[in-house]
Amino acid sequence: MTTPASGSEKLWGGRFAAATAESVEKFTASIHYDARLYRYDISGSKAHATMLAENGLLSRDELSAIIDGLSGIEVDIAAGSFAFRRELEDIHMNIEKALAERIGPAGAKLHSARSRNDQIALDLRLYLRDECDRLGELLTALRRAFVIQARTYLGAVMPGYTHLQRAQPVLISHHLLAYYEMFGRDADRLQDCRRRINVCPLGSAALAGTGLPIDRERVAELLGFDDVTANSMDTAGDRDFAIEFVSCCALIQLHLSRLSEELVLWAGSEFNFVNLPDRFCTGSSIMPQKKNPDIPELIRGKSGRVVGSLMSLLTLIKGLPLTYNRDLQEDKEPVFDAVDTVSASLAIMAELLANLSFNTETMRAATATGFMTATDLADYLVVKDVPFREAHGIVGRIVGYCLEKKCELDALSLDELRSFSPAIDKDVFEVLSVDGSVESRISTGGTSSQRVTEALGAAEKHMGI
Amino acid sequence: MTTPASGSEKLWGGRFAAATAESVEKFTASIHYDARLYRYDISGSKAHATMLAENGLLSRDELSAIIDGLSGIEVDIAAGSFAFRRELEDIHMNIEKALAERIGPAGAKLHSARSRNDQIALDLRLYLRDECDRLGELLTALRRAFVIQARTYLGAVMPGYTHLQRAQPVLISHHLLAYYEMFGRDADRLQDCRRRINVCPLGSAALAGTGLPIDRERVAELLGFDDVTANSMDTAGDRDFAIEFVSCCALIQLHLSRLSEELVLWAGSEFNFVNLPDRFCTGSSIMPQKKNPDIPELIRGKSGRVVGSLMSLLTLIKGLPLTYNRDLQEDKEPVFDAVDTVSASLAIMAELLANLSFNTETMRAATATGFMTATDLADYLVVKDVPFREAHGIVGRIVGYCLEKKCELDALSLDELRSFSPAIDKDVFEVLSVDGSVESRISTGGTSSQRVTEALGAAEKHMGI
Amino acid sequence: MTTPASGSEKLWGGRFAAATAESVEKFTASIHYDARLYRYDISGSKAHATMLAENGLLSRDELSAIIDGLSGIEVDIAAGSFAFRRELEDIHMNIEKALAERIGPAGAKLHSARSRNDQIALDLRLYLRDECDRLGELLTALRRAFVIQARTYLGAVMPGYTHLQRAQPVLISHHLLAYYEMFGRDADRLQDCRRRINVCPLGSAALAGTGLPIDRERVAELLGFDDVTANSMDTAGDRDFAIEFVSCCALIQLHLSRLSEELVLWAGSEFNFVNLPDRFCTGSSIMPQKKNPDIPELIRGKSGRVVGSLMSLLTLIKGLPLTYNRDLQEDKEPVFDAVDTVSASLAIMAELLANLSFNTETMRAATATGFMTATDLADYLVVKDVPFREAHGIVGRIVGYCLEKKCELDALSLDELRSFSPAIDKDVFEVLSVDGSVESRISTGGTSSQRVTEALGAAEKHMGI
Amino acid sequence: MTTPASGSEKLWGGRFAAATAESVEKFTASIHYDARLYRYDISGSKAHATMLAENGLLSRDELSAIIDGLSGIEVDIAAGSFAFRRELEDIHMNIEKALAERIGPAGAKLHSARSRNDQIALDLRLYLRDECDRLGELLTALRRAFVIQARTYLGAVMPGYTHLQRAQPVLISHHLLAYYEMFGRDADRLQDCRRRINVCPLGSAALAGTGLPIDRERVAELLGFDDVTANSMDTAGDRDFAIEFVSCCALIQLHLSRLSEELVLWAGSEFNFVNLPDRFCTGSSIMPQKKNPDIPELIRGKSGRVVGSLMSLLTLIKGLPLTYNRDLQEDKEPVFDAVDTVSASLAIMAELLANLSFNTETMRAATATGFMTATDLADYLVVKDVPFREAHGIVGRIVGYCLEKKCELDALSLDELRSFSPAIDKDVFEVLSVDGSVESRISTGGTSSQRVTEALGAAEKHMGI
Repeated sequence: MTTPASGSEKLWGGRFAAATAESVEKFTASIHYDARLYRYDISGSKAHATMLAENGLLSRDELSAIIDGLSGIEVDIAAGSFAFRRELEDIHMNIEKALAERIGPAGAKLHSARSRNDQIALDLRLYLRDECDRLGELLTALRRAFVIQARTYLGAVMPGYTHLQRAQPVLISHHLLAYYEMFGRDADRLQDCRRRINVCPLGSAALAGTGLPIDRERVAELLGFDDVTANSMDTAGDRDFAIEFVSCCALIQLHLSRLSEELVLWAGSEFNFVNLPDRFCTGSSIMPQKKNPDIPELIRGKSGRVVGSLMSLLTLIKGLPLTYNRDLQEDKEPVFDAVDTVSASLAIMAELLANLSFNTETMRAATATGFMTATDLADYLVVKDVPFREAHGIVGRIVGYCLEKKCELDALSLDELRSFSPAIDKDVFEVLSVDGSVESRISTGGTSSQRVTEALGAAEKHMGI
Repeated sequence: MTTPASGSEKLWGGRFAAATAESVEKFTASIHYDARLYRYDISGSKAHATMLAENGLLSRDELSAIIDGLSGIEVDIAAGSFAFRRELEDIHMNIEKALAERIGPAGAKLHSARSRNDQIALDLRLYLRDECDRLGELLTALRRAFVIQARTYLGAVMPGYTHLQRAQPVLISHHLLAYYEMFGRDADRLQDCRRRINVCPLGSAALAGTGLPIDRERVAELLGFDDVTANSMDTAGDRDFAIEFVSCCALIQLHLSRLSEELVLWAGSEFNFVNLPDRFCTGSSIMPQKKNPDIPELIRGKSGRVVGSLMSLLTLIKGLPLTYNRDLQEDKEPVFDAVDTVSASLAIMAELLANLSFNTETMRAATATGFMTATDLADYLVVKDVPFREAHGIVGRIVGYCLEKKCELDALSLDELRSFSPAIDKDVFEVLSVDGSVESRISTGGTSSQRVTEALGAAEKHMGI
Repeated sequence: MTTPASGSEKLWGGRFAAATAESVEKFTASIHYDARLYRYDISGSKAHATMLAENGLLSRDELSAIIDGLSGIEVDIAAGSFAFRRELEDIHMNIEKALAERIGPAGAKLHSARSRNDQIALDLRLYLRDECDRLGELLTALRRAFVIQARTYLGAVMPGYTHLQRAQPVLISHHLLAYYEMFGRDADRLQDCRRRINVCPLGSAALAGTGLPIDRERVAELLGFDDVTANSMDTAGDRDFAIEFVSCCALIQLHLSRLSEELVLWAGSEFNFVNLPDRFCTGSSIMPQKKNPDIPELIRGKSGRVVGSLMSLLTLIKGLPLTYNRDLQEDKEPVFDAVDTVSASLAIMAELLANLSFNTETMRAATATGFMTATDLADYLVVKDVPFREAHGIVGRIVGYCLEKKCELDALSLDELRSFSPAIDKDVFEVLSVDGSVESRISTGGTSSQRVTEALGAAEKHMGI
Repeated sequence: MTTPASGSEKLWGGRFAAATAESVEKFTASIHYDARLYRYDISGSKAHATMLAENGLLSRDELSAIIDGLSGIEVDIAAGSFAFRRELEDIHMNIEKALAERIGPAGAKLHSARSRNDQIALDLRLYLRDECDRLGELLTALRRAFVIQARTYLGAVMPGYTHLQRAQPVLISHHLLAYYEMFGRDADRLQDCRRRINVCPLGSAALAGTGLPIDRERVAELLGFDDVTANSMDTAGDRDFAIEFVSCCALIQLHLSRLSEELVLWAGSEFNFVNLPDRFCTGSSIMPQKKNPDIPELIRGKSGRVVGSLMSLLTLIKGLPLTYNRDLQEDKEPVFDAVDTVSASLAIMAELLANLSFNTETMRAATATGFMTATDLADYLVVKDVPFREAHGIVGRIVGYCLEKKCELDALSLDELRSFSPAIDKDVFEVLSVDGSVESRISTGGTSSQRVTEALGAAEKHMGI
């Protein structure tokens, strides 16, 4: 019988004849980032132990010792007094070793019928289930901020843009509620993702299941899972749920980048639509007058970061054979970074939105130019039975005439207008007004006060405001 | 009144004083790829016209002329006899112009209360709704292929791998059903995506809704949508559904890359687990003996392509202000390429799978080495009340001993085994056998015949086999 | 002796017992896109044949027949009268087969000592060498457009921005020449890439080199390569040069996206800095007044496309073992798409730039607000020996005072200014003027007329203007 | 005159009426990662101060105080005794503030004629210049490891693969030297990148240059730059050099992923080509027998990480207008992560390579099957004047015959061979041997001992071995 080799200081070291090189320990360790999962690892171990005891693999006393030992470890980690050891590689082994040191032999029984592959899949699912909920709350907070501002500014108008060119006047509230919808889809998508996350992987053991008498469904129940996974080999190498989660994050951050772009534009002298409070801006080290919209700029920039994390994960799983491959250890940092980035961005954006104010006069003034009621004029002609395409041509030529004359549509006389189409009558001037234009758009989802008030009411109700 | 400028040959040209440069027409045209959407564009126009007529914006005769005209155009396009014109930019304008030429004034009324932004959002949703269903069918076909092969090879064993190292023996069927599960998640994900696709965007008009008396809900009903979108500005610039769809595609193709990697490995002389039929391989222009697994290699390579398409779309929307920006025209080619790539890959993979055969003897032989029942031995000790961590260490040392002796576990004598642990008894040899190992793994989702037979039965039922 | 099986219709079919499935032929064929490389394939074959003849592997007559045959094929392909056959898979086999049909036995000798892996590596390098040169010319054309406009508008001022906030006044020409520099780096980068492209791969044969008496250096010389590759196995699986090339393309397109963003902003009513000619804009199908900056929007959107192509290629090679794997066939479409996208974007942008005009009055007017000479005031204090950090604070407070008074810096009286710092004297008003500010910045690379004129002169000289 | 507002605790706070919100400070701070650049920031400040003194903007005493103060700060940071303050945002302001506190008024003069945009561009260039050199050294170390192993195993044969199918026998050393070439290109590419990094940006000041009497060329000289940048506006927003650097990193890591894939394959029971020392492997928490190739797996997985960083940076700059935008702050973490990942991977891979051994007998045995001399037989026929394409067909049919007979080529009798072609004679058996095959490939870059010995000699000379 061989004596324990130096490799056996590791919990898996029995067969190894030489200790791990220090450079290798450093390169392979994950404890510096997976320590973040300690609560989930401990919850999972408690549930596993409970089930083992229920199935005769642990005595009542052993279970009790394990539960107490794990609780103590959790307290110590939370308090920052737990000494993580890199040579124990990861959070699982750090906790298992500490447990064994604290409670003796019973600790050595905890790992029956499970592997670290099991554990990390479990921890990540528990973590992401929580993060789905937390991001859901942050999305709600952001959507509330839009709703509240939409209520505050109800009635005020601004130019609606296509191609960043003034297109048609809209209500500021309508513009804000567009984002309410956009981030609503994000919340919806996360809910679907959560459903796929919330399936218990524990019990794949190495990859093939186990012959020890375990009860996977019981563990799932203890941990609040909806179901258990169906195939042990699939489970051991599955990170789809994490990739789907980061896909959701990427879309959220890109939505934030769109909003940020608008805030940056609006905060500039040219648009001057919005006032960002001093507390939310920073200055320049060289230019004494500068007050910069750093928050939206950084949020916009961080979209690259989350997209990069998604790309990392997609690349990661390319070409990996079943089941677990060590490559998968690289899943966590992109996931954590996506969570942190999106969470922080959502939170600060909600705060910024709640604190900014719109320059409603400037915004209204901006609707006065750009022929923004041209479509109304064409629609007016349609109602007078001019085929739309013909009406479009007529109004196009009127706009051309205005461009030459350097005036807006409502500056033309009735005679001038009629020279382009006899269908035009004096009631035309109603449709050429900004407010008339806005109020006319009563189609579902349109910008008329009526529709926006309805949408706002529904949103407030949904948000519990 | 100005005369029509040269720019007015375009349907939107009224206000333009100069014709579009030819280089610009070439650069901006999308007709060479969006023509693919013609059926959806025509369906959408028919539904729109029907609603316009119901709301008094078209007469019964005009509607009739429009419906007939559009049907004729659809027939011509399907027959390849429709002359697409690049200067008309896109599928919408090509059809509208042809309609006007064919049916006269009524055609000029069709575009009332809608914009091309409306149309393309509609067409893309209708198209992707269909593609979700079609990909769903292809996924089913692929999953059926796994199920059928799993039934065929039920009972045969192979090595299960972690880290591409032999780990534990498993049933081939268990390995195959892992992919059944994996692609099942893909189908599930597409269903969720389809739900977000199936919302009718028509009626945003330019971006703000319209004042013409339209009925968005009616159009949605006619086109089989579950709902209408809630905010016109959000709708005009929303491509989230397309991005989510391509995310689903990327994950499918990456799953295929994992399967492909295994097929490539298994087809090589070293593994020699699988026979790919000649009809599914190609040769070398220089090496007369070569028979290459081109299909899985190409599928694996195409994962880059779909990931690239996803990255294109994510980059595309970064920093875009509301609502429509012309950038969005670049959404279609990545979507089309993802659809084509994933569809073709799924179809050919299903065909390949159905036609390959496993070298079951080679696979069984491969389970004979690699100490693949070491975990069984440790579990045996656990049942004998040796704490798992201690049992792991004991077996590790036994493996070390075998390595020195250059033998497998089942070649050791009972005395040798007992020298490592007195808990070992003569019943140990049952757990050291490959079949015993496989059959023991009866945990839910495990590889025992019992579990796999159950899983297979459920899969067959689900697939209607 | 076996008779040729049906598989042997393929040029590599000798060992195959069954013909390739049609679905497989369709899935694996590349002729629909690699036909683009025909000129390079033919040049390469001519050089290869010439060398074979020089080394006794072809007779003079055979060589002559091959050269003539290939020339004929080239003419036919260029004329569009060559019938490509999908079952011959790729451009190499289509040409080789046609050659054999046209000239008989000699054609069957051409493929001595080379493989298709050799050929495609060669073709792609020859193609990309040309494209490097062509992109270089397009970059030059674009840079010339900047230089010409910079000369045209020399002397005119505009706001310089940081954080999209007005920062300091600059010359329009200085802003334009920033892009001249940016695209200059792109040209420089392509030159380095070209150097790595321009190495001849022909002669790896299957992967290990050949025993037939060939002369790789001679082929390289005939084809204008600088060198031959050093290791046959590396060469067969190397696509680094293509990835590097697409990296260069991605950066070019991203630079274009930055420029495009500015053009979109400047074309809007809020900035109104630039007039895009009607010929370079398109209109709206619904809004008669719209004139949209489609060109820069599309170019900006296409940045996603090129980034996607790069990601495709990077994902493609992840985890590929040496040497050639069929996955590599997927290299070409991303490369072609990157070439086409970047080429078209550069060309149309150069055309657009040459045709736009700046609203110099609006631009100057925009420099009047935003305290854009605040840094000048701080520097003025530095010259008066106020430490810079203190000067920055003083000016910051003066700006705060102006914000309350709603005035600009140059509207303050000397007394008011002196109340913030006694170091301020009446000569301060010179530094508070926009022109004074611009002209003062004479550091190398600065915006003063003197520096910009020098930079412009150098650029004109470099561009041969 | 207003009193300093709470905002003025910031060095740029003069104009601000309210202090930065704590949430904003937290969100915008970069000191937790840019502290890494402290040495470069201090070097840059020393050079800047030296130049300011030479141009009369600092007295000799002030310069001396600044230099000493900065040196002291550097010592403290290196010793870990410097207290970084998040409210000071970044490394620049932390150092400037500390300097001011340590040396008084002179410290407040250091920031004359420069901005933080200047500084960060400088710091990043200095940092990446060093990292180019460091990566160059790591690449050299890795390439040396290949060369040393190639020398060790010179003469031993293995199968060369295409499509992961056995193709032709090659020397192990030839295979190893393929990677020597591959990583050589990486080193070459980094050199080109370094040239573009090594240009001094300092002196753009805010964005437009400065009117203070500075000497940019002098600063560049002091810091070892080759040149100064040409346009202040371009310089302020330029991160091309960082993106190019990370592109180089991505390619390096992908090359490592290819090598890693091979090592993972070779370490498995099926190939069994390589022994990884225990010290470089880790075990399983559940399977006592496992010894896993974690190092190459992790390196392969980390390719996703570096590709993700590249994607982050590319997305980051999409659509950014000139000049500096706060988004650019997001450039550093991807750059740092790429540096750390690639450095660690190169180092551990070099160590692993130096410590592994090849199972040369297994490798030779693997060349005995797979008809690996089929191309030699075809070439033999070519020399006998059979056109290659015909020879290919003949050998293909011989292989088909062997497949039926279940034997290798060299097991056929001369009569059998001649039944396929009368050109075959008894000298054929020389070309059918593995060693004969290898030794015949004497084309430049081929696998014959002669060529490999030459290549190895050149590599040893180049590596200074």
